[in-house]
Amino acid sequence: MTPFQQLREEQELFIGGVAGQLYGFLAGQEAIMAGISPDVAPLMGSISNLVTGGKRLRALMCYWGWRGAGGSAGHADVVTAGCALELFQAAALIHDDIIDRSDTRRGGPSVHRRFSLLHESEGWALDSERFGHAAAILTGDLCLSFSEESFTQIGSRAASGTEARRIFNLMRAEVMAGQYLDILEEVAGPVRDRAGAVQRAKSIIRYKSAKYSMEHPLALGGALAGADEELLRNYSAFSLPLGEAFQMRDDVLGVFGDPDTTGKPAGDDLREGKRTVLVNLAIEKAPAPESEYIDRMLGRQDLGEAEVAEIRRIIVECGALEAAESLIDGLSDTAFEALERLPLDELPLTALRQLAEAAISRAA
Amino acid sequence: MTPFQQLREEQELFIGGVAGQLYGFLAGQEAIMAGISPDVAPLMGSISNLVTGGKRLRALMCYWGWRGAGGSAGHADVVTAGCALELFQAAALIHDDIIDRSDTRRGGPSVHRRFSLLHESEGWALDSERFGHAAAILTGDLCLSFSEESFTQIGSRAASGTEARRIFNLMRAEVMAGQYLDILEEVAGPVRDRAGAVQRAKSIIRYKSAKYSMEHPLALGGALAGADEELLRNYSAFSLPLGEAFQMRDDVLGVFGDPDTTGKPAGDDLREGKRTVLVNLAIEKAPAPESEYIDRMLGRQDLGEAEVAEIRRIIVECGALEAAESLIDGLSDTAFEALERLPLDELPLTALRQLAEAAISRAA
Repeated sequence: MTPFQQLREEQELFIGGVAGQLYGFLAGQEAIMAGISPDVAPLMGSISNLVTGGKRLRALMCYWGWRGAGGSAGHADVVTAGCALELFQAAALIHDDIIDRSDTRRGGPSVHRRFSLLHESEGWALDSERFGHAAAILTGDLCLSFSEESFTQIGSRAASGTEARRIFNLMRAEVMAGQYLDILEEVAGPVRDRAGAVQRAKSIIRYKSAKYSMEHPLALGGALAGADEELLRNYSAFSLPLGEAFQMRDDVLGVFGDPDTTGKPAGDDLREGKRTVLVNLAIEKAPAPESEYIDRMLGRQDLGEAEVAEIRRIIVECGALEAAESLIDGLSDTAFEALERLPLDELPLTALRQLAEAAISRAA
Repeated sequence: MTPFQQLREEQELFIGGVAGQLYGFLAGQEAIMAGISPDVAPLMGSISNLVTGGKRLRALMCYWGWRGAGGSAGHADVVTAGCALELFQAAALIHDDIIDRSDTRRGGPSVHRRFSLLHESEGWALDSERFGHAAAILTGDLCLSFSEESFTQIGSRAASGTEARRIFNLMRAEVMAGQYLDILEEVAGPVRDRAGAVQRAKSIIRYKSAKYSMEHPLALGGALAGADEELLRNYSAFSLPLGEAFQMRDDVLGVFGDPDTTGKPAGDDLREGKRTVLVNLAIEKAPAPESEYIDRMLGRQDLGEAEVAEIRRIIVECGALEAAESLIDGLSDTAFEALERLPLDELPLTALRQLAEAAISRAA
C-alpha cells in the first residue's frame, strides 16, 4: 500500500466511524423522542439530514490534529470528538440559516424552510414562515444539546479542567461572538468608521470562521492526544491563516460562485448585506458613486440579477477582487509555510496538506 | 433557632451561593468576550440581567432533592448544578420569547426587544426587529453553552454515564420536544381531532413544563447525592403532578392574571394562540358559536381588550375555568399526598412543602 492509499484508507475509516457513531447516537435520541410523541419526528429528521454527508472538514481537522500529536489511528475518543463537532456544526447551520434567511442548504431546503413547507403541505393554521422559524430555533437548540452530550461521552480526556474541554468551550463562545459581530456589521457598518471596515471584517472572519472551522478543531484533536503547548502554538500558526483564507474564499464564492456548484443562489451574500473583506475593499477602492451604489444595494432583499452583476463589475474593476485574491494568497502562503515547519510524521502532515489545499482552492 | 429559621437561612445561603457562582462564572466569560471585541458586551449584559433575580425555582428543587437524598448543606456540587439550571432556564426564556413574540419579560424588555431597541437608539441600518431576533438567537445559544459548561464543572458526579448527566440530557431534550409540541398545537390544533385536544394539551404541559421545571431538577439533585431508584420514583410521584398543577396555574394566569403582577400584557397567551388545557376545555364545553368564536380569535395578534374579555366570559360561563381549577386541585392533592409519603428528614420535607405551596397558589 502506498502512503497515499494508507492515508485515504485511514481517513475513510475515520469518516465511516463518525458516520456510524452519529447514526447510533441519533437512533438512541429518536427512540427517546418517539416515546414523547410521533409528532416530534421532523426535528430528528432535520438533524439526521444535516449530519449525513457534508465535507466533515472540522472532524477531519480534529482527527489529524490528534494523529499529529501521537494519538492512535481510529481511537474511539477522536471519533466521538468528530461526532460532537459535526453535531455542533449542524446546530450552527440551522440557526445561521434562520439568521441569514437562507432558504436553501446544500441544494435542498434549509431546516426552517422544511418546517414551513410541512406547515403548508399539511394545511395548518396561522403563519407558515413563523412556524418554520420557531421550529428551527428549537431544532437547533436540540442539536446543540446533542453536540454537548456527545462531547461529554469522550469521558476523562474531555472532563472539566482539561485542555480539550477548554478549547471546546472557547470554540462555542467565540463562534457565537463572531456571528454576532457579523450581523452587527450588517446594520452598524454603514454608520461606522469606514477606514476601520476592512479590519473589522477581518476580525469577523477570524472569530466566526477561522478559529471555529480550523484552529479549534485541530487544537482539540491535538489536546485530546496530549499535545504540549508548543505543538498547539505551531498548529495555530498553520490553521489560523488557513481558516482566514478559507473564509475569504467563501466570501469570494458568495459573490462570484456558480450557484450550481455552491448550492446557493448567486448574490445571496449581497442581499443578506454581508460586509465581507471583499465588499469593504470594493467600498474603499471604488470611485465614490460606485462605492455609494454598493452601500445602498447591500442588504436589499429584492436585489435582482442586474444589480448583482453591476456590483460584481465594480468589485472587479476597482481592483477589490484582485486585492482579495492577493490577501488569500498571502494567508495561504503563511499557512503552508507553517505547515511545512510542523514537527509531524509524514502521514498527518500529508493529510493536513491535502485538507488545506482543498479548503483554499475549492469552488463550493 | 427554630426549624423555620434554619430552613430559611440554609435556603438563603444556597441562593447566595448560586448567585455568587453565577456572577463569577459570567465575569470569567465577560473577560473572554471583551478580548474578542467590546461590541459583544450586550450579549453578556442580556444574560447577566436574566440570571439576576428570578424565583430560582429549579435551583431550589434541585437543592432540596439533593438534601432529601442525604447531600450535605451548601455543597459546591449542588450549587454548580443550580447555576447550570439557572443558565439553562435563561437560555430557554431567551428563545421562548422570540418564538412567542413576547416583548416583555419580568416587566422589562425581553432580550430580542433589547437588541431591537439598541438598534433603534443607535440609528443602525436595515431592520431593527430582524436584528433583535438574530442577536437573541445567538445570545440564547451562548447561554445554552454556558449552562453546559457550568454543569460539566460539577466533575465526576455529573460525568458521562452518571444518572445526573442522564437526567440533565433528558431534561434538555424533553423540554425542547415539549416546546415544539406546543407551537405545533398552535398551528395544527385547529385542524386536528378536537376530542383529543385536552389530552394533547396535557401532554404538552408535561414535557414543556412539569418535567422540566419540577421533576427533573428534583431528580437531578437527588441523583447527584446518590439517591436510589426508589427515592427517585417517589420524588417523581410528587414532582410530576406538582409541575402539571404549576403549569395549569400558569395557563390560568395567562388569561386571567393581573398584568401588574404577572409582568405580561393580559391576553398575550390568547394572542399567541396557545391551546392550553383551559382553552381546550372551553372549546369543548362552550356552545358551538362561542366555541367557534374562541377558535377564530386564537392566535390573532390584533386581539383587543373587548375580545379578550369576551373569551374570558365564555371560559367562565361554560364552566371551563371551574373544570381547570378542579384539575389543578386534583393534581395538587396528588402531589401533596405523595409529598407526605416521602421518606425525608423534616427540613427538606418542609422546604419542598413550601416550594409546592408557592408554586400552586401563586398569582404571578
